Amino acid sequence: MAALKLITFADAEGSRAGVLLDGGRVLDLGAAMPPARDMLALIDGGPGVLAAVRTLAANPPAGTVLPLASVALQAPIPRPRRNVFCVGRNYMDHVAEGDRTRGITQSEVPKFPQFFTKAADTVIAPGAPVPSHKGVTEWLDYEVELVAVIGTAGRDIPKDKALDHVYGWTIGNDVTGRELQRRHGQWFKGKSLDRSCPMGPVIVPREDLDASDLAIGLKLNGEQRQASRTSKMIFDVKEIIHQLSAGFTLLPGDVIMTGTPEGVGYAMVPPQTMKTGDVMELTIEGIGTLTNAIAD
Amino acid sequence: MAALKLITFADAEGSRAGVLLDGGRVLDLGAAMPPARDMLALIDGGPGVLAAVRTLAANPPAGTVLPLASVALQAPIPRPRRNVFCVGRNYMDHVAEGDRTRGITQSEVPKFPQFFTKAADTVIAPGAPVPSHKGVTEWLDYEVELVAVIGTAGRDIPKDKALDHVYGWTIGNDVTGRELQRRHGQWFKGKSLDRSCPMGPVIVPREDLDASDLAIGLKLNGEQRQASRTSKMIFDVKEIIHQLSAGFTLLPGDVIMTGTPEGVGYAMVPPQTMKTGDVMELTIEGIGTLTNAIAD
Repeated sequence: MAALKLITFADAEGSRAGVLLDGGRVLDLGAAMPPARDMLALIDGGPGVLAAVRTLAANPPAGTVLPLASVALQAPIPRPRRNVFCVGRNYMDHVAEGDRTRGITQSEVPKFPQFFTKAADTVIAPGAPVPSHKGVTEWLDYEVELVAVIGTAGRDIPKDKALDHVYGWTIGNDVTGRELQRRHGQWFKGKSLDRSCPMGPVIVPREDLDASDLAIGLKLNGEQRQASRTSKMIFDVKEIIHQLSAGFTLLPGDVIMTGTPEGVGYAMVPPQTMKTGDVMELTIEGIGTLTNAIAD
Repeated sequence: MAALKLITFADAEGSRAGVLLDGGRVLDLGAAMPPARDMLALIDGGPGVLAAVRTLAANPPAGTVLPLASVALQAPIPRPRRNVFCVGRNYMDHVAEGDRTRGITQSEVPKFPQFFTKAADTVIAPGAPVPSHKGVTEWLDYEVELVAVIGTAGRDIPKDKALDHVYGWTIGNDVTGRELQRRHGQWFKGKSLDRSCPMGPVIVPREDLDASDLAIGLKLNGEQRQASRTSKMIFDVKEIIHQLSAGFTLLPGDVIMTGTPEGVGYAMVPPQTMKTGDVMELTIEGIGTLTNAIAD
């Protein structure tokens, strides 16, 4: 069975959840099954609603299928309810490339994950323009990341139960103003420029995709800049959820960005920034490709 | 004219905005003026609605006044729409006391504010228990902070216009798990334990209170631990708003915690932690006192 690909698209009334079907078609869940009208409602509905979605996707009722070309794709969760949770320095080769820019040639493996957040409404749709933020940053950079979407609330989640709390997987681009990230010490400022978090294009349910060893990469203007595997994370998704949830309740619909591999622009020799017109294509095996361009 | 004191209280239908009147009375704005039913609606309503609230508070209509003792006070904004925005290391004596714990005797003045965030729903009411988080942190600490509540959206806000974007002032307690803050490098983890952000008890509108030089302090179990003035901030509220809004749109209802002065427990000799039953009383001149205790 093919993996289910859940999407959000816009219509006149707001956001609607859907399923990407083969042949360039979309199942409109808002029409087919009102309880799953939008993605957060779908996630809140849990396994029962997801099972019903699978049944509908296998045999869509009349009048519920639209051409993909006719809908405007949004981020799967267009506006998370809370901070976008992020992990920094979570691939060893990325730790090392960052250390090299500071003259450190022998990198230490981080002992604990570095959690920071982006503002909830930095999230934007696949294809939506990312502002160049000229005058605010001269050093805009990309970061491809596997995103875990939480489906079930939990606190103090043991590692061996952590994946039970994951609803599914998507792709995130942690667009960063590098000199802001650096000079403010804490990373929020450099990580939360307006519209700096493209996300999508789909959520693949956790049951449909083992995300522990997927190819993950990013092309800038067609040139391969990042290429790694999710198995190279220092703290895997289970460990991230375990540690993040210590004394902190994770909630359905939370999105957790799990860190980026090596190949970011700031660590290149000489360092590279992005400019207006640059096109970022982020691909994770089994999920898809998330494409956004820089605009003025 | 006395400063207006805006509150939020709970009734069976949810949160309602009100005004704290003299004589232990509360004006129920939800009853007196439905457009100002809750605090976010009041803030979204802008100066016109606030002016109407002043008129009502001066001469409350029949049937709109309740005894303060009969209502359950909530945080003024019980659930911010976005991350709780925070500034670290923003009082020089606090920078120095933190540096001393790391053996640094000559502190440098930070060149840029360190922005980080707490999760949106860490906010709790005056009087509500703060969990001890036993087993997650062994080093729970307090931090009294002046909180600026944003009233008017803006991006790239110039310093001389920054206060125009402030709706009012309240008090926040940035409860922190110190070893978590330290070992995770980025501060989100140590700063976002469940229920770690008491806030209140009132919002005083910006027009009613010049917050540039207010006494700010905290007592733990009656002992004065923190005592400073808001004029000692390294980056004042104007500068914070100017820098935070660079390329990042501030929105009505956003809350910005502006940093804590010296006297936190972790910098004491020997370092002090909090335990179940400890009572924190946070006072800022012209705003009031925010009291919360640690509970299991």
